[in-house]
Amino acid sequence: MRLRHKPYAEEKLKEHSQYVVWEPETVKGNWSSRFDKDQPLHIEIGCGKGRFIIEMAKLHPEINFVGIELQTSVIVSALDKQIEADLPNVQLVQVNAKDLTDVFDKGEVDRIYLTFSDPWPKNRHEKRRLTYKTFLSVYKTILNSKGALHFKTDNQPLFEYSLVSFSKFPAILEEVYLDLHNSDVDENVMTEYEEKFSKKGNRIYKAIVKF
Amino acid sequence: MRLRHKPYAEEKLKEHSQYVVWEPETVKGNWSSRFDKDQPLHIEIGCGKGRFIIEMAKLHPEINFVGIELQTSVIVSALDKQIEADLPNVQLVQVNAKDLTDVFDKGEVDRIYLTFSDPWPKNRHEKRRLTYKTFLSVYKTILNSKGALHFKTDNQPLFEYSLVSFSKFPAILEEVYLDLHNSDVDENVMTEYEEKFSKKGNRIYKAIVKF
Repeated sequence: MRLRHKPYAEEKLKEHSQYVVWEPETVKGNWSSRFDKDQPLHIEIGCGKGRFIIEMAKLHPEINFVGIELQTSVIVSALDKQIEADLPNVQLVQVNAKDLTDVFDKGEVDRIYLTFSDPWPKNRHEKRRLTYKTFLSVYKTILNSKGALHFKTDNQPLFEYSLVSFSKFPAILEEVYLDLHNSDVDENVMTEYEEKFSKKGNRIYKAIVKF
Repeated sequence: MRLRHKPYAEEKLKEHSQYVVWEPETVKGNWSSRFDKDQPLHIEIGCGKGRFIIEMAKLHPEINFVGIELQTSVIVSALDKQIEADLPNVQLVQVNAKDLTDVFDKGEVDRIYLTFSDPWPKNRHEKRRLTYKTFLSVYKTILNSKGALHFKTDNQPLFEYSLVSFSKFPAILEEVYLDLHNSDVDENVMTEYEEKFSKKGNRIYKAIVKF
């Protein structure tokens, strides 16, 4: 369940138990206990180095955020940002997305973000894509009935694949943007990757999906 | 139901009753009678000047094609092409898409093409877009269970709108291409418009949808 090849990083995560939930199964159904305020819960699956979730948490103190990232060596960078920012509405968890039903109760989550997920371009890796049907099942379970998945990527084949995957699941496409940075969307918090990529003039795709 | 402001064009359509079905309601359920061979039936809604359907019919003698166009002054150009080509597998019909359930029996159609349909960009004209839910209802009725809608456009807002409209109907997205001319699709018959537009380096979008 956890990658353990960088012991110093693991130590660091364990040392900051105010920011990192090390045994998230024990918090299932009771996530508000990890935050100052009982308010809507948004999670990012694959939060990487944490820029998106930290910026979002600064912009939205009225929302509780959980950043989820499997790789120890990556989530530790998100932890560094949170140590500096010390936000009361951010928690970090190192867990595999497939196990999120052990971590969140049915309907406990109000919004899921997927931002620039690994495209896993080879067909034989389809099941690893975070918009593969088994993951959509997990999202459907943990999202409440008004909740939505916010999916953003620069990877055209992954976006094409995901649109079909949503449709066949079936999930309902509420909004779609085929060129986000040239659309009328007001707020768009960019990850490091998005900023770099977008400066090259490439397109960002976004979908909002309900289950 | 029919636009009649160019009497000479109407006369021309009536003079070529071997190519143009003037009272299509009388052929409902019996379209194979209009063709040499009893074979799958593909229709194009909004066939314009007819380039796509004439080229498709040349490439696919094993398919019967019906080109549908509401505007007399436009369909007459499709007729000119068919007069020259004299294809046994092309028929033309001047009718409004909303009335297609009067023209085709339930499940009589194997494929519907929408190519570069009018985007009707103003919100108040949403109901005129050929991917609006009332039209999808018509397509669902006349397509057989294995049949599909093949939708192609260069208009990004129309494609975004249509993806959401398909999802909410609900219809199932089988395939989607966000940059058709840089994809692996083997055959792509272009309309006059598509060729001109694509040369400018703009993207063509395509979706294949089942009901």
